[in-house]
Amino acid sequence: MTVKSNKGVILKANPKGTPEVDKDFELAHRTIDIENLNLEENDFVLKNLYLSIDPYVRITLQEPTSSSLKYDKKIPIGQVIKGLGVSEVVKTNNPKFKVGDLVFGAIGWEEYSYIKSDIAYAFSFVNKELLKDTPLSYHVSFLRFGGLTSYASLIDIGKPKEGETIYVSTAAGLTGQLVGQIAKIKGMRVVGSTGSDEKVDFLLNELKFDAAFNYKKVDLDKALSEHCPNGIDIYYDNVGGKALEVALEHCNRLARVVVCGMISQYNITNPDERYGIKNLNNIVANSINIQGFMVTDYIGKDIEKEFEKDIIEWIKNGKIIYKETVIDGVENIPKAFVDMLNGKNVGKYVVKIAD
Amino acid sequence: MTVKSNKGVILKANPKGTPEVDKDFELAHRTIDIENLNLEENDFVLKNLYLSIDPYVRITLQEPTSSSLKYDKKIPIGQVIKGLGVSEVVKTNNPKFKVGDLVFGAIGWEEYSYIKSDIAYAFSFVNKELLKDTPLSYHVSFLRFGGLTSYASLIDIGKPKEGETIYVSTAAGLTGQLVGQIAKIKGMRVVGSTGSDEKVDFLLNELKFDAAFNYKKVDLDKALSEHCPNGIDIYYDNVGGKALEVALEHCNRLARVVVCGMISQYNITNPDERYGIKNLNNIVANSINIQGFMVTDYIGKDIEKEFEKDIIEWIKNGKIIYKETVIDGVENIPKAFVDMLNGKNVGKYVVKIAD
Repeated sequence: MTVKSNKGVILKANPKGTPEVDKDFELAHRTIDIENLNLEENDFVLKNLYLSIDPYVRITLQEPTSSSLKYDKKIPIGQVIKGLGVSEVVKTNNPKFKVGDLVFGAIGWEEYSYIKSDIAYAFSFVNKELLKDTPLSYHVSFLRFGGLTSYASLIDIGKPKEGETIYVSTAAGLTGQLVGQIAKIKGMRVVGSTGSDEKVDFLLNELKFDAAFNYKKVDLDKALSEHCPNGIDIYYDNVGGKALEVALEHCNRLARVVVCGMISQYNITNPDERYGIKNLNNIVANSINIQGFMVTDYIGKDIEKEFEKDIIEWIKNGKIIYKETVIDGVENIPKAFVDMLNGKNVGKYVVKIAD
Repeated sequence: MTVKSNKGVILKANPKGTPEVDKDFELAHRTIDIENLNLEENDFVLKNLYLSIDPYVRITLQEPTSSSLKYDKKIPIGQVIKGLGVSEVVKTNNPKFKVGDLVFGAIGWEEYSYIKSDIAYAFSFVNKELLKDTPLSYHVSFLRFGGLTSYASLIDIGKPKEGETIYVSTAAGLTGQLVGQIAKIKGMRVVGSTGSDEKVDFLLNELKFDAAFNYKKVDLDKALSEHCPNGIDIYYDNVGGKALEVALEHCNRLARVVVCGMISQYNITNPDERYGIKNLNNIVANSINIQGFMVTDYIGKDIEKEFEKDIIEWIKNGKIIYKETVIDGVENIPKAFVDMLNGKNVGKYVVKIAD
């Protein structure tokens, strides 16, 4: 009996606003017969082990429109959703990938993924050196795009300087917690905002931020006046919209705004309903730099190697704490994803699909 | 008889919206007795020769508020308005400045300015080397902040690359015309927008832009699709607001937005009435850099010397055309200023106050 379960999560409907588990997603009980599967040239089959739960996936669930959110292809209704994962090669017709190899790349929200030759180039091997010191779950995001996102953007765009102040929004997410900790290593005053008192505790007591607050309980403008008395030199923005507008009022001359994401705007389907930012005049008045980036801008650059070197050293000597929550089972991916979008996670959500 | 006329333009009222010559400005018929004037230590007196007419002055006419437009001090009602000018030292108690010296700095909209020692540091000498090849009027802006603004921001922030496309708004103003011409020298496709058919002609036929259009007569979105078929790599923004929002939709990956000014927003006194930009998500989607600057960021840097070297060479060998309109008489400053804000100028407005 070579037929195996290959449950997968398919897109049932384009979410309106915040996705809903039952309305927008469906678990398809499919099977796969690996032994009798005929692979075309250079194709291979992956057994998926860990999946990273990332905000950018929300954008791929939109109805395709003339929208400017072009940085990922949209998932058609009825098809398996995609995300970044770590997998084991279980069958291969591609000389580069051998059975047993551990690889990283864009897989489906499913137990097994059939990878066609034309996207094989987008898979790379799990770094065996790093694997000695770190669990496999770290390789799905933290040691890949997740960690590199924080490191490269903070160093390259933020240009952290000792004694300056950084304000990080959604500071308890993977990106935020790493940005804050790296900024501490660089000698900055680190201020974070997050959505629950539990997370504020985590930022202050575990990550040792200089200040942190629950944005749901304060007036942001007043909180920034209180916690950033010398103004903001780097605003690390994961939120966009009104939060960006308020932060711009606190930015010092020559401040850098690193725009990692605009999570406040992702669930807004109608572009006219997005928040309109009225104080970009501050950019001129204070010579402010606002820069967006995608982590792929940094792939293959020197900074990727510097990241691997620094991050392993910082983990080993305890300078960086990395908090993740591992959730079991492909059937729990939609809930993990929606919870993450609703800010329920402390640290990084990773789904364990198989051992 | 040593008493001389010292007419000056004072601020009569804080303009609401676009300033009005008669409502907001008043010509004060004052006199000055230079011979019998007692100077305190390190003070000096200037006879003003040329005044530069610049948009930034509009901001200094606002009522002082908690507004974020902090980059210039507000002019109190009843006081002489300030601007950048070239002047001759006519009396001095400051060993650095001798009678007959030609200097550049912030003077009053008046015939003579009394300069106190505490702001003497902000005056510098007209470059005599450059004066051999250029009229004195060029030294009030073009060879100073005006030209340096275009050069430094385009090179430092815009990073022009051969074959790329630049779109310049208010392209017929001093900044725009220089930016466009330098971009041509750097091998770019140069597209400009401006507010009259006469100026479109000027951009196409005199400055040799690749494309130009009258923004009052077209739909900006369609015009950009037509004239920037390969998208925009540099948007040189003098306008802000809706124009910035539309341009962002045409920006390529890794585009640079140089924010020189937001003239569309300067006349809006109530911050709530400013235009709200809703598509900053493009910054993330396309790794776009939006950067503001002030020309003073570049003063004393290497790029200032490079500018002087390049600009003189370009003028001498005819690679750069500089168009200015010289208006006579201190009493005509308010009209020149209002006309400039209303876009009536082709090229740079300079007021000749005296020979």
